[in-house]
Amino acid sequence: MKRYRNGEVWDFEHEMQLRGVEREVILGLDGGTTNTVCVCMPFADRLPDPLPVLARAVAGCSNHNSVGETAARETLEEVMADVLSKSGSTRSAVRAVCLAVSGVNHPTDQQRILNWLRDIFPSHVELFVQNDAVAALASGTMGKLHGCVLIAGTGTIAYGFTEDGREARASGAGPILGDWGSGYGISARALTAVIRAHDGRGPDTTLTCSVLQAIDLSSPDELIGWTYADPSWARIAALVPVVVSCAEAGDQVANEILLDAVQELASSVKAVVQRLGLCGQEGRDPFPLVMVGGVLEANMRWDIGREVIRCISMDFPGVLPILPKLRIHS
Amino acid sequence: MKRYRNGEVWDFEHEMQLRGVEREVILGLDGGTTNTVCVCMPFADRLPDPLPVLARAVAGCSNHNSVGETAARETLEEVMADVLSKSGSTRSAVRAVCLAVSGVNHPTDQQRILNWLRDIFPSHVELFVQNDAVAALASGTMGKLHGCVLIAGTGTIAYGFTEDGREARASGAGPILGDWGSGYGISARALTAVIRAHDGRGPDTTLTCSVLQAIDLSSPDELIGWTYADPSWARIAALVPVVVSCAEAGDQVANEILLDAVQELASSVKAVVQRLGLCGQEGRDPFPLVMVGGVLEANMRWDIGREVIRCISMDFPGVLPILPKLRIHS
Repeated sequence: MKRYRNGEVWDFEHEMQLRGVEREVILGLDGGTTNTVCVCMPFADRLPDPLPVLARAVAGCSNHNSVGETAARETLEEVMADVLSKSGSTRSAVRAVCLAVSGVNHPTDQQRILNWLRDIFPSHVELFVQNDAVAALASGTMGKLHGCVLIAGTGTIAYGFTEDGREARASGAGPILGDWGSGYGISARALTAVIRAHDGRGPDTTLTCSVLQAIDLSSPDELIGWTYADPSWARIAALVPVVVSCAEAGDQVANEILLDAVQELASSVKAVVQRLGLCGQEGRDPFPLVMVGGVLEANMRWDIGREVIRCISMDFPGVLPILPKLRIHS
Repeated sequence: MKRYRNGEVWDFEHEMQLRGVEREVILGLDGGTTNTVCVCMPFADRLPDPLPVLARAVAGCSNHNSVGETAARETLEEVMADVLSKSGSTRSAVRAVCLAVSGVNHPTDQQRILNWLRDIFPSHVELFVQNDAVAALASGTMGKLHGCVLIAGTGTIAYGFTEDGREARASGAGPILGDWGSGYGISARALTAVIRAHDGRGPDTTLTCSVLQAIDLSSPDELIGWTYADPSWARIAALVPVVVSCAEAGDQVANEILLDAVQELASSVKAVVQRLGLCGQEGRDPFPLVMVGGVLEANMRWDIGREVIRCISMDFPGVLPILPKLRIHS
């Protein structure tokens, strides 16, 4: 059982005193493109409310499409070791592991992570690997997989389930493949607007001053170097609040970027709702829409989440927006 | 003088028999995002036509924004060593080196490459480092830096010079910053169209079949993994001929992608021409426009280059398109 860095993240287990029979625990992990949160909870037949969290650990990006396979796996392994160590447990106490990770887009992604978890944990441990959207939906519906979820953080995805178990998704394809409503998409369009204004290909915008100030550059000429020096998606996405501020202050370019993002996000949800028929034959049936992620939750005066709901409810008046109560992200 | 991989690319110099006084040579290099070509020519006060090329060497991408600093420098050093070795010369025979490299966007980029060339070549060697657009312009105007050049290959840039030495550029900002008329931009939009059709967020398109076939995938689900497995810009840009074929066969989505690309490319040129006043006060003065790169030179039935010229000449009827006769790319 050879692990990365020779498995030293698990060294704490040798040092831990064995205290007879260990309490059984489960691990739940929410892996995003900006950060990854893992909690350790006591195993129980049903989840009490509030959840009794024994320990919580946080790490960086675990989306393999953003940081590469090796870095993503190391992050996942480290955060699981960290949370077990904090809770005073070892891997032999683990009853089940549920990983909900962004970047799990295809059965092969799922299988790759499962194989690798199988190497880490004893064979009796139950393993679950899903796209993080599945966990986000469950977090808003208290565990029931029915309805639709929209995540818009650094990345974006819409995911839905019918009561009889059919599922569908839209977006979640990353920055190259048109996730224009994501935090990354909004920020990349803002950076592009700065370049275009500088070139004389686009209108002047207050984004120029605000963006340069936010990232401590003195001229748009320096933006190209800044952008490609570090390809991390989260670093780009961090500019969303700058775009929102400019739009709130009346900048037309920033405003259009946000309006377009709203259309993009709404269209992802609509595509999922339509394909699954969540809205019923007449298009008016109620269905839950769980909304998660920094782009939707910022609640500024220019409220992207509110506008997305408005846009969806024009086509599907039965939409029931839910901002999850259960959060493992702080 | 410590070089990458301990400088073994220059080992041939030790093995080469010294044949008394070496013939003086100059090195000219065109570094693109797909490939890099270096030629070695005898030094002469003026360039004869045709150019007496002693040797020619080809390597991959030397744009540091695409492949990173280290890989770009290694490529540049290797291709220069290769061409000198082929021409039977050593570095002590070199009189001047002119590097025209994509990704040189800021004086700091230029200085970094100059410093590093200084380490490689003896101190008497004259060194020139420019954006590859400068060499492309000169290649169309037989060395005179006047007029405008549009490159559209894997990346795109428009660059212009006035007779009195003022210069301006537009685009050349890479895929994240809105070079939508580039080969990469066209292909990324085609991939996005496939994902959108698959999600139900966009119209059906024959791009789905054609793109999947071209990259040997069986379902759009696999596109995300394919895209992020290798972030090389050139790999994505290689799909342009697929988009052109679909547009020629009547696909509306592909057609719109190409029409948008034409607008983007034309707008870059127009911005440069306007800022430099190349078109004169009335906007009707003649000026040369050198057009270079796979996107403009493919000359299919759907001829992107021809459409770009048509679009520019509506605003600037004095545009004189030039397809360079001098080519160091084959």
